[in-house]
Amino acid sequence: MGVKFDRLVYGGDYNPDQWLEYPDILEEDIRLMKKAHVNTVSLGIFAWAKLEPQEGVYDFDWMEEIINRLYENGISVFLATPSGARPHWLADRYPEVLRVNEMRQRNIFGQRHNHCYTSPIYRQKVRQINMKLAERFDHHPGVLMWHISNEYGGECHCPLCQSAFRSWLKKRYNNDIKEVNRKWNTAFWSHDYQNFDQIESPTPLGETSIHGLVLDWKRFVSHQSVDFCKAEIQALRDAGGTKPATTNLMYNFPTINYHEMAKVLDVVSWDNYPQWHKGPERLIAMDNGMQHDIMRTLKKEPFILMESCPGPTNWQSVSKLKRPGMLETASLQAVAHGSDSVMYFQIRKGRGGFEKFHGALIDHYGKEDERTYQECKEVGADLEQIDELKHSNVKADVAVIYDWENRWAVEEAQGPRNKGVFYKEAVEKSYYAFRKQGLNVDLPDMTQDLDGYKIVVAPMLYMFRAGFEDKVRKFVENGGTFILTYWSGVVDENDLCVLGGTPGGLMDVMGLRSTEIDGLYDGESNTVKAVVGDVAYKCEHLCQLVDVKTAEPLFVYGEDFYAGTPAMTVNEFGKGKAYYVCADSEQKFYDDVYAEIVAKAGVEKPLKQHIPEGIEVSTRQGENVEYVFIQNFNKVPTAFTPELDGAEVLFGEVTGEMKPFSTIILKK
Amino acid sequence: MGVKFDRLVYGGDYNPDQWLEYPDILEEDIRLMKKAHVNTVSLGIFAWAKLEPQEGVYDFDWMEEIINRLYENGISVFLATPSGARPHWLADRYPEVLRVNEMRQRNIFGQRHNHCYTSPIYRQKVRQINMKLAERFDHHPGVLMWHISNEYGGECHCPLCQSAFRSWLKKRYNNDIKEVNRKWNTAFWSHDYQNFDQIESPTPLGETSIHGLVLDWKRFVSHQSVDFCKAEIQALRDAGGTKPATTNLMYNFPTINYHEMAKVLDVVSWDNYPQWHKGPERLIAMDNGMQHDIMRTLKKEPFILMESCPGPTNWQSVSKLKRPGMLETASLQAVAHGSDSVMYFQIRKGRGGFEKFHGALIDHYGKEDERTYQECKEVGADLEQIDELKHSNVKADVAVIYDWENRWAVEEAQGPRNKGVFYKEAVEKSYYAFRKQGLNVDLPDMTQDLDGYKIVVAPMLYMFRAGFEDKVRKFVENGGTFILTYWSGVVDENDLCVLGGTPGGLMDVMGLRSTEIDGLYDGESNTVKAVVGDVAYKCEHLCQLVDVKTAEPLFVYGEDFYAGTPAMTVNEFGKGKAYYVCADSEQKFYDDVYAEIVAKAGVEKPLKQHIPEGIEVSTRQGENVEYVFIQNFNKVPTAFTPELDGAEVLFGEVTGEMKPFSTIILKK
Amino acid sequence: MGVKFDRLVYGGDYNPDQWLEYPDILEEDIRLMKKAHVNTVSLGIFAWAKLEPQEGVYDFDWMEEIINRLYENGISVFLATPSGARPHWLADRYPEVLRVNEMRQRNIFGQRHNHCYTSPIYRQKVRQINMKLAERFDHHPGVLMWHISNEYGGECHCPLCQSAFRSWLKKRYNNDIKEVNRKWNTAFWSHDYQNFDQIESPTPLGETSIHGLVLDWKRFVSHQSVDFCKAEIQALRDAGGTKPATTNLMYNFPTINYHEMAKVLDVVSWDNYPQWHKGPERLIAMDNGMQHDIMRTLKKEPFILMESCPGPTNWQSVSKLKRPGMLETASLQAVAHGSDSVMYFQIRKGRGGFEKFHGALIDHYGKEDERTYQECKEVGADLEQIDELKHSNVKADVAVIYDWENRWAVEEAQGPRNKGVFYKEAVEKSYYAFRKQGLNVDLPDMTQDLDGYKIVVAPMLYMFRAGFEDKVRKFVENGGTFILTYWSGVVDENDLCVLGGTPGGLMDVMGLRSTEIDGLYDGESNTVKAVVGDVAYKCEHLCQLVDVKTAEPLFVYGEDFYAGTPAMTVNEFGKGKAYYVCADSEQKFYDDVYAEIVAKAGVEKPLKQHIPEGIEVSTRQGENVEYVFIQNFNKVPTAFTPELDGAEVLFGEVTGEMKPFSTIILKK
Repeated sequence: MGVKFDRLVYGGDYNPDQWLEYPDILEEDIRLMKKAHVNTVSLGIFAWAKLEPQEGVYDFDWMEEIINRLYENGISVFLATPSGARPHWLADRYPEVLRVNEMRQRNIFGQRHNHCYTSPIYRQKVRQINMKLAERFDHHPGVLMWHISNEYGGECHCPLCQSAFRSWLKKRYNNDIKEVNRKWNTAFWSHDYQNFDQIESPTPLGETSIHGLVLDWKRFVSHQSVDFCKAEIQALRDAGGTKPATTNLMYNFPTINYHEMAKVLDVVSWDNYPQWHKGPERLIAMDNGMQHDIMRTLKKEPFILMESCPGPTNWQSVSKLKRPGMLETASLQAVAHGSDSVMYFQIRKGRGGFEKFHGALIDHYGKEDERTYQECKEVGADLEQIDELKHSNVKADVAVIYDWENRWAVEEAQGPRNKGVFYKEAVEKSYYAFRKQGLNVDLPDMTQDLDGYKIVVAPMLYMFRAGFEDKVRKFVENGGTFILTYWSGVVDENDLCVLGGTPGGLMDVMGLRSTEIDGLYDGESNTVKAVVGDVAYKCEHLCQLVDVKTAEPLFVYGEDFYAGTPAMTVNEFGKGKAYYVCADSEQKFYDDVYAEIVAKAGVEKPLKQHIPEGIEVSTRQGENVEYVFIQNFNKVPTAFTPELDGAEVLFGEVTGEMKPFSTIILKK
Repeated sequence: MGVKFDRLVYGGDYNPDQWLEYPDILEEDIRLMKKAHVNTVSLGIFAWAKLEPQEGVYDFDWMEEIINRLYENGISVFLATPSGARPHWLADRYPEVLRVNEMRQRNIFGQRHNHCYTSPIYRQKVRQINMKLAERFDHHPGVLMWHISNEYGGECHCPLCQSAFRSWLKKRYNNDIKEVNRKWNTAFWSHDYQNFDQIESPTPLGETSIHGLVLDWKRFVSHQSVDFCKAEIQALRDAGGTKPATTNLMYNFPTINYHEMAKVLDVVSWDNYPQWHKGPERLIAMDNGMQHDIMRTLKKEPFILMESCPGPTNWQSVSKLKRPGMLETASLQAVAHGSDSVMYFQIRKGRGGFEKFHGALIDHYGKEDERTYQECKEVGADLEQIDELKHSNVKADVAVIYDWENRWAVEEAQGPRNKGVFYKEAVEKSYYAFRKQGLNVDLPDMTQDLDGYKIVVAPMLYMFRAGFEDKVRKFVENGGTFILTYWSGVVDENDLCVLGGTPGGLMDVMGLRSTEIDGLYDGESNTVKAVVGDVAYKCEHLCQLVDVKTAEPLFVYGEDFYAGTPAMTVNEFGKGKAYYVCADSEQKFYDDVYAEIVAKAGVEKPLKQHIPEGIEVSTRQGENVEYVFIQNFNKVPTAFTPELDGAEVLFGEVTGEMKPFSTIILKK
Repeated sequence: MGVKFDRLVYGGDYNPDQWLEYPDILEEDIRLMKKAHVNTVSLGIFAWAKLEPQEGVYDFDWMEEIINRLYENGISVFLATPSGARPHWLADRYPEVLRVNEMRQRNIFGQRHNHCYTSPIYRQKVRQINMKLAERFDHHPGVLMWHISNEYGGECHCPLCQSAFRSWLKKRYNNDIKEVNRKWNTAFWSHDYQNFDQIESPTPLGETSIHGLVLDWKRFVSHQSVDFCKAEIQALRDAGGTKPATTNLMYNFPTINYHEMAKVLDVVSWDNYPQWHKGPERLIAMDNGMQHDIMRTLKKEPFILMESCPGPTNWQSVSKLKRPGMLETASLQAVAHGSDSVMYFQIRKGRGGFEKFHGALIDHYGKEDERTYQECKEVGADLEQIDELKHSNVKADVAVIYDWENRWAVEEAQGPRNKGVFYKEAVEKSYYAFRKQGLNVDLPDMTQDLDGYKIVVAPMLYMFRAGFEDKVRKFVENGGTFILTYWSGVVDENDLCVLGGTPGGLMDVMGLRSTEIDGLYDGESNTVKAVVGDVAYKCEHLCQLVDVKTAEPLFVYGEDFYAGTPAMTVNEFGKGKAYYVCADSEQKFYDDVYAEIVAKAGVEKPLKQHIPEGIEVSTRQGENVEYVFIQNFNKVPTAFTPELDGAEVLFGEVTGEMKPFSTIILKK
């Protein structure tokens, strides 16, 4: 399975279409790329205007020449389909291709990603150029993969989309409008639909109060985006293209369920832009690592880091310079979490336009004596040094569920805390607690298998998608350790409240019923105190009250009218254990409590020794070999001697002290 | 006069139309309501789609069945007209019924309260269903009252409304456009109108700079809303309906002058949603009590608490659980201030939609062993215990003027402090100072009588509506105590500045002229120092400078270039006294100064003893009987033994210490 | 050259058109104006509706009567063209005259300044009334000058403007769309234009990502506004008008390049509304002085202070009273910086409309015993006392470049700090450092001559407009002292990045190359430490790193990975010196460093003695005479005895201590 390149891929987005009038620069680019160990570039991402300057008139020669020149110099290509931005003539002639916003205003030509995913004309025009590109370039030995469009996202409310939404709903609800009314509880506020034609996408000008509608609209937007991508790839296949295809995904992206998107891709790739040095690097690394792991879990295979920034970005509120060592460490972190590449946006800074000051391998200055260029060159050399670990994979014994549909529902619901329930943060706290012990972590959604994990955590799983309760029940019955938190199992997959008690369908597994949930104002807090011993932790935001049946309280609340009632419980069920965490407690609570649970569940750690704060440990597993990455994300030297235990040092130095932003890779 | 029900009304909004497919639940609802002492529900508020599923096709049978079932079980009904939300077919067929916003965009079907108050079609369709409902149900013995629509509000800028606005203006200004120009001073910025057709409602796209236009638009919006309500009631009467009618008003609501609305209602009712536990409960209680008193003063008769929340709400930024005792104390506070009911939104939580997590008597869980259900049951029992005090009224010796039109004008005027003049807060400070002494307080507007009061306060009465100066002059001449504050008497009822000196028409009564007013930045302050003695208070936001003629300074400013000039004065006029408060001083200033004024004015207090902070005292007067409510809004036990003075304890216990959130009712 | 009035002008905006129905008030106005030494008023600014009540029907008699009455009483007139607000009939009949916003929505009649600068109809109607006014009043001896429209500003996106924009671009780019693509680098994101008709003004609905387009749109908006003003003046000339013309400019105004506007005016005038007492007055005075100097530098001639506020304003967030003395000191500050007038908005407060509470010579109260009136009267007397210094000019040896086009570009560019690069603040720091030594300062733009200056500073000159590098090179070669700061010379005049190293074209003059620039988060800082000695200063926001060639470091960074690298350098070039300031350092850095540079450059100071904080020193130069203004902007008395050095005291008193907000004028 999976896409395997013959080396760790190194390079980035390259836009020679901005420099066609500067032949010397194009030559110099190749010299500088080679010197920096670049072996692959993404090409043609926004080149449609140059590839099809008039409708039906294609000009691919300049691109072929560039692909050839690159190939001659040992540089391969991820060839892009150009749908991310369209030529003026297309929007002029077919205004339907432009997006309509939720206020029902049609956009004017401009920006990028400004296209309707439904428009038949747009789909046809994209199909045509994709086929032409495939016919001309798919067979080229320098072309390794198709880079489909760019950072899909956003939504369109045009009449074509309204119509497609209705068709999608008809299919989902068996063409039965009464079923829609039932599933969306439209009787509330007299919103019963008489027919599908009355349904409009959510808008401040009209409907926003039906959660079922809002949720299904989000599902449709995601579906339509995925379907568009699928159609793009199909065009390549229909033209005889055989090279694998991917599209570049984004950080914590809301509008597309990436689990659905991953299904139509041959390999997952993503664009990674952490704001290094905005606060402690060790926390940014933790957050960033979680995103790498989300991407990796989509297919549970190595992925491609498609974009990252070699210098400062230019579109964040403050664009900080990367401190020495940061680029190397961040690049190797991607590899540690399962990437088989390090790629940048961009190879050369453009002269004008929105991203002209975005970091690049080659600056406007254009010469080698630049810090960024020199650091990139080192990263290129590093990757050649560790090339052997390509194709090795990341295996995890623990999983923390992170589910797009749950996110949509829980963030939209008017509930106990409209100013923030902190779903992502709830997931992070569990993820971090495992990572601090050096454990690899998967982040599956509710549709993925739980088999094979020793511990599964479901933080704030407000919505139980169909079948999830059963999966959990079996997992625990068979000996798994399951951890559920506050504000879980409240609604079904249409965001309709469960009747008869929550967490829906799991009250016996958890051994309790959730009764009330208290919202705390910013600045308010409570404490959770261990039933045994006198340890206590702070909690904030949300405090769930529970009525225990068979469960045993491990922690109780310290304050307020519910002081003394359970704040964490455990229930023996079948061969397994089910823990319930009632409150949004501080990180240390998770760190301490999960350390015990990990020990009890018999999960093995890659390093037995204590891992200091700021040091990250990750592993990749090859055939009969394990690579252990040890990375220091502290900006000061940190005392740490990893136990070698017979392992070989593949990269870095073991000296008893790790330098700031440095990496050691052991091979076992 | 007044609407009198045969017991204290207890119940809430009930939406069986969301549960028609769950007959068991409908049965269980009745069992649970009865057990909780519920005697009345509001029915059919958003049921139009179920009552008239197609145009002209009515289905009232399900409702009759429910009314009958309720009636058989001792539960009466406030029957709603369903205009608050309309069926899809109505908006589809007659798009004119949907609102147009100030940017001149027509809404799409959705939300609620999304209808034009002018549309002849909408008025006709509402009239039709109201008449049908009246014909079918008005005579039903279970129907106690009509609940007209729901929480009227908002505005529409459609062509029909523009036209109605122009007609309304023609009537107001005798069809004379020159009179409009004069009253609005349109010569400013060359805005003279040549004819009425040129007048458009205020909009960011056009006119916002003519205060007279903005003010008249607000008056028109209020008028049109009231007129719509009036037409709804008229439909019931035209169909032979005889039951009283009300509509549910809201907290500190801006867009309708409730004094006008009250005139078309048989009884005042309102929806009360304080954010209990967001800050000290004693302050929230004070604020909340003021709103109860505003509602009561509309008719100076007992009112109906139509909605309140038995648990946490779901639409505020944070939805806190009510602490034990809070529900009972908040419910009895309404009664203390003149309510003859306690009603909730809602009887049962819906499964889906915007308010699915809003507190209710019956949770999704659906059983009795819920804290909220149990507390509601106690409140039901309480009301039965104190049922005798129904129909008794609240009498007040002091009044603090709170005027909708003044609010519109002073908040719109570009004056000394555009980032906030704090009109409501100015009213509150005076109100609180009286309430802390246990005095009942009326909050009339400028059109109501001043006769019968011993003290009248006019805080920040920027605008003097026609005739108000005369009323005040007579009140003081006849021996009344009048208190006026800074930024008063500045403009006439068209927001035109008074010429020749302010406060307009009252310079002799006050014995001074206001000269300049200083705006203070946030964080800046001055002090007001007693002329006699060395007491001083902080003041903020606004400092009025005055030129005293016959008035005597009681306080002077402590700082800045106007140090030593008067900050509070008193003037003897006729048989009365006129005080002028120059600056926005801290609450303690009002507490201390008003205590002296109360004593001088000979106002009698219900309890002679000192009332500790957080204890509220209120009275209701029946025939030869007075009920004294003593409520502890502190979240800690508070030492207090009310002097019985021969009174009987009707409710609660007198133990020397009042429990948190507890109530004592004495009967004299 | 230059417009010279026969006395210092004193008066303000007068709107008798709001009082035509109050003849007594019009009479009283004249009495009060005369008593206050008023000699000039601006008349008719928003009087179009009164002047042309119906299309083509003019009514000028009332105005003639007022001009005559004023003239008989020794009061002259700046007569306005009324285009700032239009009559209803004009917008009704010709909707094209109303503005269209960037969202492509056409405004409704309302507000002021709501007109399209392109509309041929609007231009024609304005031309007609301007000609009529000129024919009737230009020859009147009471009319001194034309006051063209009012506070031009804003932009329109209507089809007529789109078309005019395209024509303007065709001219600029020789009708060559490929040249546009090249200059705007439209290849980025595939935005190549095929023809000019595809170009649309920037909008959130369409294009905002092409910096070249955004910049040219700003240039066009400025051009069109200036062209409109030019056409207004031409109408007066075509009707035989000979009186000079001006329009009132505004504080730090973004949308019009005032250097272009000044070219079509006979004299510069502006409206000055500092928020006195919002923070330390000495800082507000410094900021305000800079704006006076920007206005003066436009023509390097005396200017007219057209509006200022005699009391509190009414449109700022808080409207503070002016402390005693503030009005006089602020008024004389304008004169110190080159104004030959003091004028107010407004003579009399209107009764209604947006500005009814704006400070005025005459209050609604209407009598003399008002503090503001009395203070205005004193200012009138002051101006008569110092009348001899009219026509004298301000000469400066030092210049700080402040360039509109650079401002547009640097604030739009997505670069190292999108949350603020602080261009204006960078200019201020240099300006303040010179002013604290009592030096007059010019603030030319890049197109003005550098000849004659001893020191020229170019703070944050991100964009080098064509020819600027050469001008600087010659200036330094010939012995000038040039100071350039961080984030300079980065792009060319189309906002295209310079290739080959920055600051573009000046690397040899500065003796270094800028390599990287670090953005610092709010709250972060670094230090700059002197290479010799141990003085150090804090810096924030932006730190430029440089690679020195021939330059000598004077300061180095104190912290972070670039500690020890240069933070300020000097390079000898030709007969001059070129300094480079790398970081956004605190004010004291500039104060100390510039003091040394001033000494080295041989710039002479008007007072040799130390000037205490809060005292401002300015000079005006007449024929063989110099006036030295010494003003105390501290709100406390300040010890200071200016060295007389043979000078005469023209105004104020030299006592060893200057009173708060007081002025001394010496005559040398």
